[in-house]
Amino acid sequence: MKVTVSHIKGIHFEGEGSSKLRTQMDQNITSGGSGYGSSPMELILMALGGCTGMDVVLILEKMKVTFDRMEIIIVGERNSGTPLVFTDIELIYKFWGENLPEKKIQRAIQLSMEKYSSVANMLDKAVNITYRLDLS
Amino acid sequence: MKVTVSHIKGIHFEGEGSSKLRTQMDQNITSGGSGYGSSPMELILMALGGCTGMDVVLILEKMKVTFDRMEIIIVGERNSGTPLVFTDIELIYKFWGENLPEKKIQRAIQLSMEKYSSVANMLDKAVNITYRLDLS
Repeated sequence: MKVTVSHIKGIHFEGEGSSKLRTQMDQNITSGGSGYGSSPMELILMALGGCTGMDVVLILEKMKVTFDRMEIIIVGERNSGTPLVFTDIELIYKFWGENLPEKKIQRAIQLSMEKYSSVANMLDKAVNITYRLDLS
Repeated sequence: MKVTVSHIKGIHFEGEGSSKLRTQMDQNITSGGSGYGSSPMELILMALGGCTGMDVVLILEKMKVTFDRMEIIIVGERNSGTPLVFTDIELIYKFWGENLPEKKIQRAIQLSMEKYSSVANMLDKAVNITYRLDLS
């Protein structure tokens, strides 16, 4: 797997991989950037959410579980030294829909986090990752 | 730090953080997606490239080093089991410009990778990361 990250201007970078859609990276203005994209540390949290989200969608499809809407909130706590790595990450899986089967969804999340998710299984070597389900 | 990842359709997800620009995540068609964004594992490589790229730009600015163009190629090797984590990542830093001071650029890259980059310093707990400079 190969991606290219190109310097655009200031600390704005653009990432290109196998998709035609490019990914913008920058810092917000208070952190010395121009706000033209997510910060790399935000992208790490998004990659974690997207990776487990894809797993969960595919597992629920096999379980014939349907839902109206799904969202994952990912919160990262950083240490105060240099480098500013994450020490703890919490994922909150939110589902909307009628008669959602809580146990099946819990199981799908658990399978992703403990077995399938490549991103989760790399990050948990460095960060304490927790997760919970929130059915609306 | 908090981001939200929302399910769009199929395995297409959208990430939102502090920037107004949202990040699209999907798999390509051969991997069961629709190609509407980078894969989460590609995003990890981009986050690594963007994080160290920002460091290097800022360090070179302090060193009064100027360049015409900069690009980082990030190559990830994955294992063959489940989960499909990266085992090795190589970064190739490419610079274009006249009279580029190789030693200063090497030093900036080294400072980022060994000291400042939050993403590099998390990932190196799980993955073997190497890097090299390629001056054109």
